Amino acid sequence: MTLRVPIRVRYAECDPMNVVHHAVYPIWLEIARVELLRAQGAVYAELEKQDILFMVARLSLRYKKPAFYDEEVEVEVVCQPSAGIKIEHKYRVLRKNPANPVGGEDVLCEAETTIVCAGRDGRAKPIPEGLVP
Amino acid sequence: MTLRVPIRVRYAECDPMNVVHHAVYPIWLEIARVELLRAQGAVYAELEKQDILFMVARLSLRYKKPAFYDEEVEVEVVCQPSAGIKIEHKYRVLRKNPANPVGGEDVLCEAETTIVCAGRDGRAKPIPEGLVP
Amino acid sequence: MTLRVPIRVRYAECDPMNVVHHAVYPIWLEIARVELLRAQGAVYAELEKQDILFMVARLSLRYKKPAFYDEEVEVEVVCQPSAGIKIEHKYRVLRKNPANPVGGEDVLCEAETTIVCAGRDGRAKPIPEGLVP
Amino acid sequence: MTLRVPIRVRYAECDPMNVVHHAVYPIWLEIARVELLRAQGAVYAELEKQDILFMVARLSLRYKKPAFYDEEVEVEVVCQPSAGIKIEHKYRVLRKNPANPVGGEDVLCEAETTIVCAGRDGRAKPIPEGLVP
Repeated sequence: MTLRVPIRVRYAECDPMNVVHHAVYPIWLEIARVELLRAQGAVYAELEKQDILFMVARLSLRYKKPAFYDEEVEVEVVCQPSAGIKIEHKYRVLRKNPANPVGGEDVLCEAETTIVCAGRDGRAKPIPEGLVP
Repeated sequence: MTLRVPIRVRYAECDPMNVVHHAVYPIWLEIARVELLRAQGAVYAELEKQDILFMVARLSLRYKKPAFYDEEVEVEVVCQPSAGIKIEHKYRVLRKNPANPVGGEDVLCEAETTIVCAGRDGRAKPIPEGLVP
Repeated sequence: MTLRVPIRVRYAECDPMNVVHHAVYPIWLEIARVELLRAQGAVYAELEKQDILFMVARLSLRYKKPAFYDEEVEVEVVCQPSAGIKIEHKYRVLRKNPANPVGGEDVLCEAETTIVCAGRDGRAKPIPEGLVP
Repeated sequence: MTLRVPIRVRYAECDPMNVVHHAVYPIWLEIARVELLRAQGAVYAELEKQDILFMVARLSLRYKKPAFYDEEVEVEVVCQPSAGIKIEHKYRVLRKNPANPVGGEDVLCEAETTIVCAGRDGRAKPIPEGLVP
């Protein structure tokens, strides 16, 4: 399953280079990940109330082009098949660009995360069924 | 009691105007408030474990001059006498400036907060003794 | 002119009290202010390119009720008549609550800001026409 | 050259899991990177004024253990030999733990970044001499 989540760049997310600060992208990835979960029928806020926490164990980003203030970008997220207590996601941050012959959009950032499912005590838990392909 | 807490401006705290974003100052005030508490003998992290939360009920800031990336500023905090479940703090964010005849420093920001003491259930609690003048 | 801007609470905006951290609200106010500007026909990102910066000179917030992760809140913003180089805005952060007999919503936060119009050199400038009532 | 930079965890950096949010670590890495530069005799704020920007092109983190509010952690940073317009850094976020037989500290996070040197126009530039081993 693939989902695209629109995000409008906030002023406070930009830095003196006049572009989105690189530490903002992990926050956007998290938003997209939660919306993908919602599209799959699970609400992360509810999972936490049942002591099912998704902890980020690994995060990797490659920044291709800068994003600018007030732009509308999209975060594309896809959930990778994985086993046991881990969930792998892949992401692309995209911006419309009619001049780009490849799909009419620019790839601003490519990223991956590994999520581990655990309780508040920090102990690993199996991922609730239906949340991974 | 008055305390001065040094803070080095982080790159991620600055915005495209090339100055510290105005939403960063409340975070600095909180740091100073916690250090004042520590100087008074209380560790806020420990208070939270005892279900004593300090919630911000009111926040007011007047921005006088901008702060720039990598500068060393100081947050001056003073605890105001108050009664019952509230604590009032006053703050000034300061930067050394030998050219300024008034104290050799510039006032970047003046601020006040009102903190309310409560438990995790949101119910007001008396402030632990010794934390207010 | 009054505008209401919907905002979904991000996980990274919440703190160990399990509520939105108080320093996040100024960021939300800024988003609402920019959208009000857009509804009035001006794009803040374009104004900056013309060396018209809106600097926050004063910020005041009263926190009434906490906002929680994943909630959909609304920031209501209204532009106050003002003179010269300043713009005053008033805000309310609201959350739907059918149980509340007053308008079916809770007021989470009330706030005001004073914006000063200036160039990159820090010198005050008149506000472009049509942006204040 | 290796440097260790102490950081006190801020309240606003922690999330409802009661730990430092994963998007905060890139901000800490940046602080350490800038301090390493300072120890090498270069001030990043001055480099930017000379139109020498360090842009993050790649970021990779592995989270091992959570960091908690008010803890004092250390970010260890080392600059890797590299060629041309890129600088590679490796990092470890560490916390004192006398019970740990390996060095008396826990590794909370391991990370790497690739920085590209460029001007405000986005064009690559050679790294100023003396900043890489």
